[in-house]
Amino acid sequence: MSHVNPHISNQIKVRENRVKSVSYYVDGILHKRDDFILSEAITLLESNQSTHKEVAFQVLSECFQNRNTSCIRVGVTGSPGVGKSTFIEYLGKKTISEGKRIAVLTVDPSSQEKKGSILGDKTRMNDLHNYDSVFIRPSPSSTYLGGLHRYTSEAIWLCEAAGYDMVIVETVGVGQSEIEISDITDYNLLLVAPTAGDSLQGVKMGIMEVADMIIIHKADGIGLSLAQDQQNAIMDALHTLHRNVPVVLHSSLRPNDGESMLTRFHELVKDQPKQENRKKQYQKWLRKRIHQHIVEAVSEQIEGDNSNLKIDVELSKTPIQTYLALLNNLSISVKFAG
Amino acid sequence: MSHVNPHISNQIKVRENRVKSVSYYVDGILHKRDDFILSEAITLLESNQSTHKEVAFQVLSECFQNRNTSCIRVGVTGSPGVGKSTFIEYLGKKTISEGKRIAVLTVDPSSQEKKGSILGDKTRMNDLHNYDSVFIRPSPSSTYLGGLHRYTSEAIWLCEAAGYDMVIVETVGVGQSEIEISDITDYNLLLVAPTAGDSLQGVKMGIMEVADMIIIHKADGIGLSLAQDQQNAIMDALHTLHRNVPVVLHSSLRPNDGESMLTRFHELVKDQPKQENRKKQYQKWLRKRIHQHIVEAVSEQIEGDNSNLKIDVELSKTPIQTYLALLNNLSISVKFAG
Repeated sequence: MSHVNPHISNQIKVRENRVKSVSYYVDGILHKRDDFILSEAITLLESNQSTHKEVAFQVLSECFQNRNTSCIRVGVTGSPGVGKSTFIEYLGKKTISEGKRIAVLTVDPSSQEKKGSILGDKTRMNDLHNYDSVFIRPSPSSTYLGGLHRYTSEAIWLCEAAGYDMVIVETVGVGQSEIEISDITDYNLLLVAPTAGDSLQGVKMGIMEVADMIIIHKADGIGLSLAQDQQNAIMDALHTLHRNVPVVLHSSLRPNDGESMLTRFHELVKDQPKQENRKKQYQKWLRKRIHQHIVEAVSEQIEGDNSNLKIDVELSKTPIQTYLALLNNLSISVKFAG
Repeated sequence: MSHVNPHISNQIKVRENRVKSVSYYVDGILHKRDDFILSEAITLLESNQSTHKEVAFQVLSECFQNRNTSCIRVGVTGSPGVGKSTFIEYLGKKTISEGKRIAVLTVDPSSQEKKGSILGDKTRMNDLHNYDSVFIRPSPSSTYLGGLHRYTSEAIWLCEAAGYDMVIVETVGVGQSEIEISDITDYNLLLVAPTAGDSLQGVKMGIMEVADMIIIHKADGIGLSLAQDQQNAIMDALHTLHRNVPVVLHSSLRPNDGESMLTRFHELVKDQPKQENRKKQYQKWLRKRIHQHIVEAVSEQIEGDNSNLKIDVELSKTPIQTYLALLNNLSISVKFAG
């Protein structure tokens, strides 16, 4: 098109060139186990451009069939300041010492302002980042309310295709995310800080309903007795919810007292993914994605330049009369052919 | 249906009974000018039940044609703590003293927690609330991000049908609401607090682009010289935006110095709504509502019990293969018949 600004046209070209072939990503992830290419593929997933997403889903389709099916998906949820990064460093290093490779998907709240800072979170997990058998991927939280990125499910599957044995997903656990984290992981660990006074302050009931293990973090020094109070209060709350899940004290900085956390974790996980749960999760994932796709496609039909919908206030009518008349004549059909 | 739990069925009955006939609301608003019925009609608008909304829009359709077309719509935007309530009390009382009736639509952030507290905001405008010629309606902010309720446009129209001469809409001005307030009001007043140091801190550029007048509030006592600095900084910023709007100092508590605010306000408004702007606003409103209706209807088609869409992960395929196959066969059609 001759009327396109050549400068802009060039920019688009450069961007398109950045997207490599499907086989580049599949080979890089499945065979080379190249963390850089894995990261590139996750970036494609998170892109807003539909061409990027198409490539990403083709990559995903091949990767899913050849992923490490015994990989364990662990969610770590907790309010800001409760020590999620420190805890993940602790759990991560213990897991590596068992000869395993781990991937950590974190939410990077900083990048909302910085527009895509990728290194933000890495600095928070300095220690863990030095190991070869660790992949850390912070995703900007800007695109998703509640602390979980839209495409975290798919990012987990790509990590499994790259052969990782455990994927840890960190979430802030605000809003709806406590519900959603249980839709994409096998085991959910809820971190709680020892707090004085009203002990359950800040611990939402919704999150307690999906946690598989509750960890009172920073249970050391002067925090220890508060942590014990917190433990009792939480066990009472779980009792009223008719839930029986382990509630353990732990300190990631002085972990001598905390080995019981690891014991309970191993008892819970038994080195196995929760296969029976995954079917339901996949079904839910599918419905969500189809729903999202349809809503996006419909929005395009309405808002797009080629929209066949003429939405104008008629001169002879008030806006409300036009609205009610349009609604009466509106036909919407969504179906699967064949 | 005999299988319906009779207890639940009764509950529904009682609820349905609460919705009165269209003529009850129309008569109450247009002829009796009954604030209680006006408030009931706004509650119907904000309801999540589609039957309520249907009645509300029929009421609205009759009311819109018979509303006070010379009513002036004023938006008051500002960060929490800037003194919006105090300012609205001041402006409101001055307007009443000119023999006018005013309606104030406020956002009530407290009701997000209290689930529908209606009196929350009234206490903040004690003085104004005592006048007969004033209608104050706080709406829960929980249903809408950004500080504006979804149905504020429609609530304004109902107030106009009840004969009010000025409708003041209070918004927090976070997120997108600074853009949206200009889609539903004639004149937008932006309140800014005098702040030390980096004077424009907290004043978003987006909000400056749609403000028709900027008021440095709390310009009294020790705040006065800070307010003057703030005024200069804002005028500089407006200059770079090529905007020429009044920037005035004002104190609602010691308004002797602030009479110039009222003068500038009258110069701006000239006792007239911005009629030429309203056509565009109605067009935008119509598109937004139709868009919203279609997305909701589509969601129902997908999620509803009668959904004709079978979204199941096929046993012979991975979830991603099923997803890609479904997308290939999906047909979506949205059109207006005739």
